[in-house]
Amino acid sequence: MLKQPNTKYRPVTPIPLADRQWPSRSITRAPIWMSTDLRDGNQALFEPMNGERKMRMFKMLVDIGFKQIEVAFPSASDTDFSFVRTLIEGGHIPDDVTIEVLTQARPHLIERTIESLRGVKRAIVHVYNATSPTFRRVVFDMSRDEVKQLAVDSTLLIKRLTDAQPDTEWTFQYSPETFTATELDFAKEVCDAVVEAWGGTPARPVILNLPATVEIATPNHYADQIEWMHRNLANRASVVLSVHPHNDRGTAVAAAELAVMAGADRIEGCLFGHGERTGNVDLVTLALNLYTQGVDPGLDFSRINDIARTVEQCTQIPVHARHPYAGDLVFTAFSGSHQDAIRKGFAAQKPDAVWEVPYLPIDPADVGRTYDSIIRVNSQSGKGGVTWLLESEYGVTLPRRLQVEFSTAVQQLTDSSGQEVRAADIWKLFAQQYFETTAPFVYVTHHLREAGDEQGIELVLRVDGVERTLSGRGNGPIAAALDALGVPARVHDFEERAIGHGADAAAIAFVECVIDGVPGTTFGAGMHRNIITASLLAVISGLNRAAGKLDAGARAAFTGGRALSAG
Amino acid sequence: MLKQPNTKYRPVTPIPLADRQWPSRSITRAPIWMSTDLRDGNQALFEPMNGERKMRMFKMLVDIGFKQIEVAFPSASDTDFSFVRTLIEGGHIPDDVTIEVLTQARPHLIERTIESLRGVKRAIVHVYNATSPTFRRVVFDMSRDEVKQLAVDSTLLIKRLTDAQPDTEWTFQYSPETFTATELDFAKEVCDAVVEAWGGTPARPVILNLPATVEIATPNHYADQIEWMHRNLANRASVVLSVHPHNDRGTAVAAAELAVMAGADRIEGCLFGHGERTGNVDLVTLALNLYTQGVDPGLDFSRINDIARTVEQCTQIPVHARHPYAGDLVFTAFSGSHQDAIRKGFAAQKPDAVWEVPYLPIDPADVGRTYDSIIRVNSQSGKGGVTWLLESEYGVTLPRRLQVEFSTAVQQLTDSSGQEVRAADIWKLFAQQYFETTAPFVYVTHHLREAGDEQGIELVLRVDGVERTLSGRGNGPIAAALDALGVPARVHDFEERAIGHGADAAAIAFVECVIDGVPGTTFGAGMHRNIITASLLAVISGLNRAAGKLDAGARAAFTGGRALSAG
Repeated sequence: MLKQPNTKYRPVTPIPLADRQWPSRSITRAPIWMSTDLRDGNQALFEPMNGERKMRMFKMLVDIGFKQIEVAFPSASDTDFSFVRTLIEGGHIPDDVTIEVLTQARPHLIERTIESLRGVKRAIVHVYNATSPTFRRVVFDMSRDEVKQLAVDSTLLIKRLTDAQPDTEWTFQYSPETFTATELDFAKEVCDAVVEAWGGTPARPVILNLPATVEIATPNHYADQIEWMHRNLANRASVVLSVHPHNDRGTAVAAAELAVMAGADRIEGCLFGHGERTGNVDLVTLALNLYTQGVDPGLDFSRINDIARTVEQCTQIPVHARHPYAGDLVFTAFSGSHQDAIRKGFAAQKPDAVWEVPYLPIDPADVGRTYDSIIRVNSQSGKGGVTWLLESEYGVTLPRRLQVEFSTAVQQLTDSSGQEVRAADIWKLFAQQYFETTAPFVYVTHHLREAGDEQGIELVLRVDGVERTLSGRGNGPIAAALDALGVPARVHDFEERAIGHGADAAAIAFVECVIDGVPGTTFGAGMHRNIITASLLAVISGLNRAAGKLDAGARAAFTGGRALSAG
Repeated sequence: MLKQPNTKYRPVTPIPLADRQWPSRSITRAPIWMSTDLRDGNQALFEPMNGERKMRMFKMLVDIGFKQIEVAFPSASDTDFSFVRTLIEGGHIPDDVTIEVLTQARPHLIERTIESLRGVKRAIVHVYNATSPTFRRVVFDMSRDEVKQLAVDSTLLIKRLTDAQPDTEWTFQYSPETFTATELDFAKEVCDAVVEAWGGTPARPVILNLPATVEIATPNHYADQIEWMHRNLANRASVVLSVHPHNDRGTAVAAAELAVMAGADRIEGCLFGHGERTGNVDLVTLALNLYTQGVDPGLDFSRINDIARTVEQCTQIPVHARHPYAGDLVFTAFSGSHQDAIRKGFAAQKPDAVWEVPYLPIDPADVGRTYDSIIRVNSQSGKGGVTWLLESEYGVTLPRRLQVEFSTAVQQLTDSSGQEVRAADIWKLFAQQYFETTAPFVYVTHHLREAGDEQGIELVLRVDGVERTLSGRGNGPIAAALDALGVPARVHDFEERAIGHGADAAAIAFVECVIDGVPGTTFGAGMHRNIITASLLAVISGLNRAAGKLDAGARAAFTGGRALSAG
């Protein structure tokens, strides 16, 4: 690092806006949300989603409540083009959802983009070109007028092509890419020209999207830029003002919030902030920030664990343990004084009263989670806790969310014993809690078989004491076992590791599962020399543990699944 | 989630501050930084750091340039108390560094806290009590006056105890915990009383720290609260105004920045934002945000990879791939148009000119990193890339940073072949690049031996063609091998996994290593049926690959290590 960074880096120039209004405003209703998980979020993944994963993400976005979803950059890849066609031809787009596609401002790409949309009921066509001085000079070698003309020509081409498909209800969106680094008067000039070229009206407004392609200053600067545009655009009534913040300085959420206070109507972003480099603004955090101010965000994150695990599976990037609202540790209290205050807060909280439990900005139940307090087995001695003891003495590493879950059982043990707990006690407790579950299911044996492209299984179990042989199939043994059982359960996560080496080696498997009627997730674990048996034991452990939380009636329904009733 | 959250959650009440000044301000110099990695950051870890890890973190914080470091909560645990004693008695505190300790406002804890500091040259004693209505009513059942009296009594006790140790230069710090949820007039009343009780003067100011214990609103609200206090405190000239933002709404960085614009002098936080729940504000991002505005932050993050890996090892929590400045993917461009613009930007960037490479908010070299462009092997076909092919065809999962590194070699292959690359080609390339390195070191064999508590090793190698037997010891085989080699190298990260099962099973090991004189990190990989041999092969591969980047002279010095010259 340079000792005098001022020779290499310069502060941004403040926006001349002495009478700015946004600092006195509050956000009292939700903006229009636009998810770009399938486009900007997808393009920065090591493995961009394939068609199947894109469809899974699309359906989840619809379920959450997104009404505008950027589904592809159709001219960039056949996968993206085909995905748009599949959505349209397969009838997967609900009536109240509008898909959006992105294109560069180049005629053949625009043509291919419009072609991808043939037959769609409603669509947003989103075109962009970069407008900042660096891009004009270094990347494109174009003048201001040339850059503006490119935007206008692209608008006119899209207008002509979409006019030729009058059965579709078209919305036009334009982004001056690198808006934050563009001179404001020039951004306005280009935006005004585009709105005029399209013929935007209050009844048929143009979406003007002003991206912080790279975040370049404190978030108040972006708010000033947005308010300046909001107040200076020639035809504001014919515009939906949209923002698209990136997170290079870690302030994308703030930038989006201040921008809405400054006049923005719409926010583009991704679940958990995926996207190029530091990612797009995180729509989960934004929505739940609104929620905890009493404003209905119009998006449903009541099953945030499901959503987090699905996003992780689609993107192959984990949600951080400290991610607001969704991270593994954000509803976990480690400190004794925090635990004490939270306990008192829960006790004092009336069902219909305003939420005010200390240290918890939201009721965990509102997002389908639970509050966990963590006890350290012997924190006073400083020699570590549950995890450390199991790792060092037994070579077993527990998944983090399982650590949180298991901690409750350990706490009960320490509370009742009142003294320091040894590794052997903890391991025995773990075995009791996870390996020795016996109801409703006890594993007896299994046989794998070929089943075309899939894995088939014959699973022999005792169900409430009666031996049954169940048959199923799926992508792998776990899916096949769940199919065989026919119970309303899903597996969120699976991990398996060797413990020990050589002749003594065994595998320990962990599954995180969800069953209907039980809040949150429940872990199961299995240990066996054969890795497949270990994983099946883990599934059965997880189902037994989860079913133990059901009342008698729900439990009867749970074990009355397809295969069991047939068995 | 509730459809009408307004019955359960209420918006915050705006601060009456019509003439607020902060939105027109810029940050032109660095605040005082205070690292609480060893206290607030440490207390929310599954495994709080032991003394050795605390010392490692402390020394790194000093190296980075922190002058104020909260090192412990001495009355809470013996580990913490002993750590303070070790720092003082071992002479580990540099002359220009002041340690800080935290205590609750309880007499016996305060006494124990002051006791821990006996003999220290300089220290900050930090006491807190919660002041918000919810805590007064639900947690403590205390009136306003009682809460204020508790703060004043604690201040007077600390004054008396510290006056009795006049050889130490004492600074007093008070935090009204849950400041953000406290009525401003009451926060001011308590703070004013504390400053008066201590006898704060401009020459000997009190640090008043105003925590966002829980983040409760958009960051402008916190800025308004800070500006209100800044302008209304009775004796502002005798106060160092400090902030301590948490990240419950994902806007802690913004809150800290706006708070400094609003009058704060000092920021408390953690590297990469560790701490209870969503964590404290991230000091790395804050410092580098300043840096990229041309302001010297006074903290040195020029070796950000080293720092990130050390923090990961101490906290056991990974830095997220999209974390600003430090995440694995933040200097990686996936999109072709981004890659093109960045390439042109680098070409146009003059050495002494202001930094303006597109999409890169900072020169990666300034933080010891490199820019990577990622090619997808057959992204047009949508069937996945390098990672996917190796995983599906060979069962090999590469660590993410290795994926980035290896991508460059794959890109050269695809650029030269001009056609789609098959899994076999990639695997062959990987083997060439990682398994078949032969200079300077070729592994021959090794023998493990007992060495007290440590692992001993005899390592037989060919070095530039000459067979040598080297002897070393360390915590494990890798540390012992590095000791045997005696080269200036460190291992940042290590991963090993099984590939295949049963009789065909082997282990593949990956090490990420750093050698003096080579920027960034370099990966090595080894594959063998014996997991120890695989890990040694990986170390040698990494050292060979890194040494290949040295010039001839540096390379000669590199292999002229202790053991080699003796061998």
